[in-house]
Amino acid sequence: MQPVKIGLMGLGTVGGGTASVLLRNGEEISRRVGRCLEIVHAAAREIDSQTILDASKVKLTDNAEDVVNDPDVDIVVELIGGYSPARELVLKAIENGKHVVTANKALIAIHGSEIFKAAQEKGVIVAYEAAVAGGIPIIKAIREGLAANQIEWVAGIINGTGNFILTEMRDKGRDFNDVLKEAQALGYAEADPTFDVEGIDAAHKLTILASLSFGIELQFDKTFTEGISKITPEDVVYAEELGYRIKHLGIARKTDKGIEMRVHPTLIPERRLIANVDGVMNAVLVKADAVGPTLYYGAGAGAEPTASAVVADLIDVARAMGSDQENRVAMLGYQPDAISNLPVLAHDAFETAYYLRLLAEDRPGVLADVTRIFADHDISIEAVIQKEPQKDQTRVPLILLTSRVIEKNMNGAISEIQNLDSIEGEITKIRMEHLG
Amino acid sequence: MQPVKIGLMGLGTVGGGTASVLLRNGEEISRRVGRCLEIVHAAAREIDSQTILDASKVKLTDNAEDVVNDPDVDIVVELIGGYSPARELVLKAIENGKHVVTANKALIAIHGSEIFKAAQEKGVIVAYEAAVAGGIPIIKAIREGLAANQIEWVAGIINGTGNFILTEMRDKGRDFNDVLKEAQALGYAEADPTFDVEGIDAAHKLTILASLSFGIELQFDKTFTEGISKITPEDVVYAEELGYRIKHLGIARKTDKGIEMRVHPTLIPERRLIANVDGVMNAVLVKADAVGPTLYYGAGAGAEPTASAVVADLIDVARAMGSDQENRVAMLGYQPDAISNLPVLAHDAFETAYYLRLLAEDRPGVLADVTRIFADHDISIEAVIQKEPQKDQTRVPLILLTSRVIEKNMNGAISEIQNLDSIEGEITKIRMEHLG
Repeated sequence: MQPVKIGLMGLGTVGGGTASVLLRNGEEISRRVGRCLEIVHAAAREIDSQTILDASKVKLTDNAEDVVNDPDVDIVVELIGGYSPARELVLKAIENGKHVVTANKALIAIHGSEIFKAAQEKGVIVAYEAAVAGGIPIIKAIREGLAANQIEWVAGIINGTGNFILTEMRDKGRDFNDVLKEAQALGYAEADPTFDVEGIDAAHKLTILASLSFGIELQFDKTFTEGISKITPEDVVYAEELGYRIKHLGIARKTDKGIEMRVHPTLIPERRLIANVDGVMNAVLVKADAVGPTLYYGAGAGAEPTASAVVADLIDVARAMGSDQENRVAMLGYQPDAISNLPVLAHDAFETAYYLRLLAEDRPGVLADVTRIFADHDISIEAVIQKEPQKDQTRVPLILLTSRVIEKNMNGAISEIQNLDSIEGEITKIRMEHLG
Repeated sequence: MQPVKIGLMGLGTVGGGTASVLLRNGEEISRRVGRCLEIVHAAAREIDSQTILDASKVKLTDNAEDVVNDPDVDIVVELIGGYSPARELVLKAIENGKHVVTANKALIAIHGSEIFKAAQEKGVIVAYEAAVAGGIPIIKAIREGLAANQIEWVAGIINGTGNFILTEMRDKGRDFNDVLKEAQALGYAEADPTFDVEGIDAAHKLTILASLSFGIELQFDKTFTEGISKITPEDVVYAEELGYRIKHLGIARKTDKGIEMRVHPTLIPERRLIANVDGVMNAVLVKADAVGPTLYYGAGAGAEPTASAVVADLIDVARAMGSDQENRVAMLGYQPDAISNLPVLAHDAFETAYYLRLLAEDRPGVLADVTRIFADHDISIEAVIQKEPQKDQTRVPLILLTSRVIEKNMNGAISEIQNLDSIEGEITKIRMEHLG
């Protein structure tokens, strides 16, 4: 069979990894697929002699437009990242009748609807396995492996930087800023860590997972996002004492009222497999009606793990590009005419359990006042721990775990409790999920 | 689009589950796939009024041949189990130009080569996702999701009954026979538990995983199999003290000398995610060159989890049946003309680390004699624990952990140690893998 001709845009970490994997494993891939995947054109900001591509066989350019306009190219791989010019290049490639593979989560989360519509009209494929959880084939699992199921919820550790920080905080009792600095030194975190630690990167991925799971439009702007920068070592310790771990989860859940899409620190029972996913590793837990819970674990970033997903997409596209559009896997998992308009819930309509930490006066009656307010708001308390006062302190930390409650109710209760004279400072509120 | 017409053979646990899932989730499936999957003909040993299928729409028969000979049927689903008549029915269905979906691991492990060859010649597809690890889409993950990689090894908990027994032994200090009886009462284990506890069922699945991972023929007869019936509560406790758990693993590994295929009890570090897969759940850990380790976890058996995989296959076949054979995923993961003849290693050539338990005389010099023999065989000792003598005993349990060694060397050392006067009874030998 004819080789499939690939145009590569971006020769940075992931682009370099993709080229390496294609070259090193070319023979193994041919044994599986029955044809070759051949890079014929590559664009990078700086083309130098260090590239692993052989300039006698591959056209090299510093202008990515050359790649999308090359009539020889069957599939364009976009590994530039960011919104622009990635969006314009991808749309141009589609206009030129080329299939596209991308690892760009931000692009898909924000401009996916526009891109998929253009691709659908032109009859080309846009594949993006590498955009969510790096090397874990989670998009394939949800879109194909679990296609028989109604998905109930998805919960994922989908940002390795955040998980590294929380793992270090727990293992070594370190505080957030201290570990963040180390993560930056190790290259796990960017100089501006906002995307990772405030949950924006995870929200991009969760937006995609929610659409794939429930057949809704991509709606990044409706994804609730709360970062991990306010998590303290004492919360990590108290959670541990209660049998929980704090993870930065992306959660998408289908309820009677609509879809919850939320990224936030979450207490989860330590016995759950996903609670034991440590360091920079990612994992996605999917609860579906027929199969029950399934979990997918692996490296969520890095040159070759991401390349593994990019090349898997190339292979899929190589197989599917000769088939009729109606026989292809729908790009967003559901047929374009079957997208649902289920509402996305605002955060005050979310239902979760809570971990609460209060600083309370150490005298009789305080707990009674607090629990009375919860009862008035129909909130059950599952556990209470009162810690010893820390030295020179007249207030004691009071830890409460609640049952599941609508966030609006919880916020009402909290603001009443906050007004009690016996309570000092702000109440710490961390959501809790049993993932059962 | 036209509905895809399905003939179902077997309406037992998995057959009933498949019918349930197709009926309940039909609408969701159509939203994804853009067409309907319709059961038009079903065979069961006893057709009674209890079936969930509507006899006014579905032809019902007690003769499975009616299904494979029905010209209306596009895809035959074989959920009868066992070797015969499943083999003959599947071959007949292929001869009649029908695609086949099966959950039958024994059939694929033993007769897969014959079946795939017939299907290849006839241009039809045989899909078998449900044959390995039930609802976990592990075949799709290896064959498609990781297709860019060279796979180094696969290690799986692929028999839920065995994992339930080992989990109960560890959690509650119970012994093997005691838990087995409970598993039988709960319906997790058969009246004759040999298939599960002696590792034959796991070996069927491992045979398939090895072929998918390395592109070798299916060679069930060369898979080494050791059961869990000799594992004692004390070994479980000693393993725990050393930071390990005992799991019944199926392991396929590519080495310089050939392929290892082995099912046996294995000590693995408790910090590994797969060590925390408990009860009847399954998990498969795959180590591949580009992506590194990935893990897939879920229910390995049961009506609807297995149905989830069967229906996912139906959807895949519905999509692929209109395409040219060369654009389909190869049935065994590799193109038929690219199957490798790498040798499968005999068990005395396996390389693993070991946990050893000896009953030794409690006097100076015994440990020196034992460790001298290991040194003579070039085996490094990583840890030694000498336990207190149990009451009324003059011998003490001696636990040793070794480095990785070829099994032949280990057996040589063990038979010499066994001959020492200071050593009583048989030496317990459990393989150990770090899965790093």
